[in-house]
Amino acid sequence: MKNIIIASTSTIHGSGYLEYILDELSILFNEANSILFIPYARPGGISHDAYTDTARTAFAKINKAIKGIHEFENPVEAVTHAEAIFVGGGNTFVLTDQLYRNHLIEAIQTAVKSGTPYLGTSAGSNICGLTIRTTNDMPIVYPPSFNALALVPFNINPHYLDPDTNSKHMGETRETRIKEFHGFNPQPVVGLREGSWLRVSGDSIVLKGKLTARIFEKGKTPYEAEHDTELNTLN
Amino acid sequence: MKNIIIASTSTIHGSGYLEYILDELSILFNEANSILFIPYARPGGISHDAYTDTARTAFAKINKAIKGIHEFENPVEAVTHAEAIFVGGGNTFVLTDQLYRNHLIEAIQTAVKSGTPYLGTSAGSNICGLTIRTTNDMPIVYPPSFNALALVPFNINPHYLDPDTNSKHMGETRETRIKEFHGFNPQPVVGLREGSWLRVSGDSIVLKGKLTARIFEKGKTPYEAEHDTELNTLN
Repeated sequence: MKNIIIASTSTIHGSGYLEYILDELSILFNEANSILFIPYARPGGISHDAYTDTARTAFAKINKAIKGIHEFENPVEAVTHAEAIFVGGGNTFVLTDQLYRNHLIEAIQTAVKSGTPYLGTSAGSNICGLTIRTTNDMPIVYPPSFNALALVPFNINPHYLDPDTNSKHMGETRETRIKEFHGFNPQPVVGLREGSWLRVSGDSIVLKGKLTARIFEKGKTPYEAEHDTELNTLN
Repeated sequence: MKNIIIASTSTIHGSGYLEYILDELSILFNEANSILFIPYARPGGISHDAYTDTARTAFAKINKAIKGIHEFENPVEAVTHAEAIFVGGGNTFVLTDQLYRNHLIEAIQTAVKSGTPYLGTSAGSNICGLTIRTTNDMPIVYPPSFNALALVPFNINPHYLDPDTNSKHMGETRETRIKEFHGFNPQPVVGLREGSWLRVSGDSIVLKGKLTARIFEKGKTPYEAEHDTELNTLN
């Protein structure tokens, strides 16, 4: 049975790394003593070791040990035997590329579908969707595919941002970009604002946090979903 | 001899399409009666016809005819025989994908290197760099490669935006994204603010417009280039 948290961000403004969601993580990971951390997305280009230390410090507060996947000789086996998995944020292209290079797409899908608890934040949440085609990140590497883990039947847009009506900048708004996405892709997109997350338990996918989420369905006007809404019918 | 304008944007705030740069375009295109427009980037998902009409209206003001490349049976021949080329903005991934599918990368390179004047705005400027790996756009389609036209020896980041020091949003700033780019790519990046453009004449590449540009070189602190600076040494 799937047991997943898909969080828009690791950190909300004015709060420490994972601090806002630590109580939820105690529940998600209640049967795990040790969590396998996948640091491939390397935010700001930091090393796998430095990133893993950040995760380690945060999870020490709820008495969970962290092991970085790069510390294992065989990453597929590390995933297969993991008690729990956490994929951190950073660059979605770098993350996806490394998952393919290390043959981890199927390994993670299999583990999560058989019940290994999974936490994703930001890029680690993007890859829970059908594809990474709604990432906000810069395409700094060329992955072998944009297909992602497909742990939910739609796409995710983390760090969702409402249009700034005072802006004089002419770059596209997030809403325009997602509208363009639907010119070429059929699946719904969930725009998750910072501080929101999806709680997946088996076939249930519920929006959590205090905010609404923006839902984009092809051919429909975008709309808001209230928190505690069940989103498993979205596909 | 190369004769190119690489503009950050087609439109600056409070002004019509191409209006701010029309005098420059009269000079760039002074020997052309007709301009081949490449509407593949489809901003907001509009049709090739509708987008071509927008370009047609703007260029009528300086008495230039516009033909959309989609009106030709053979796009490669259309490029080869064009008096001038304009590649409009929109989604860089969609644009790049269509250029590859229509076998236009080499055709455009050959035409521009033999002197066909070229205007790019936004996505049409992104593709003038070595790769599209510094685009701001959403990867809504998967192109066969991120390699671009390489008309200049560096990468372009159009619509360059300075960090908003008042923001409470935790998504990466543009500067952070380009720093991450340099973790995986060696080439310099020119961050072109809206209202700026690069004027390429043969081997010369000069920054034009009233603003400075932000230059990112791997391993160096980013710095500002003044307008009228020669950037051909950047590689």
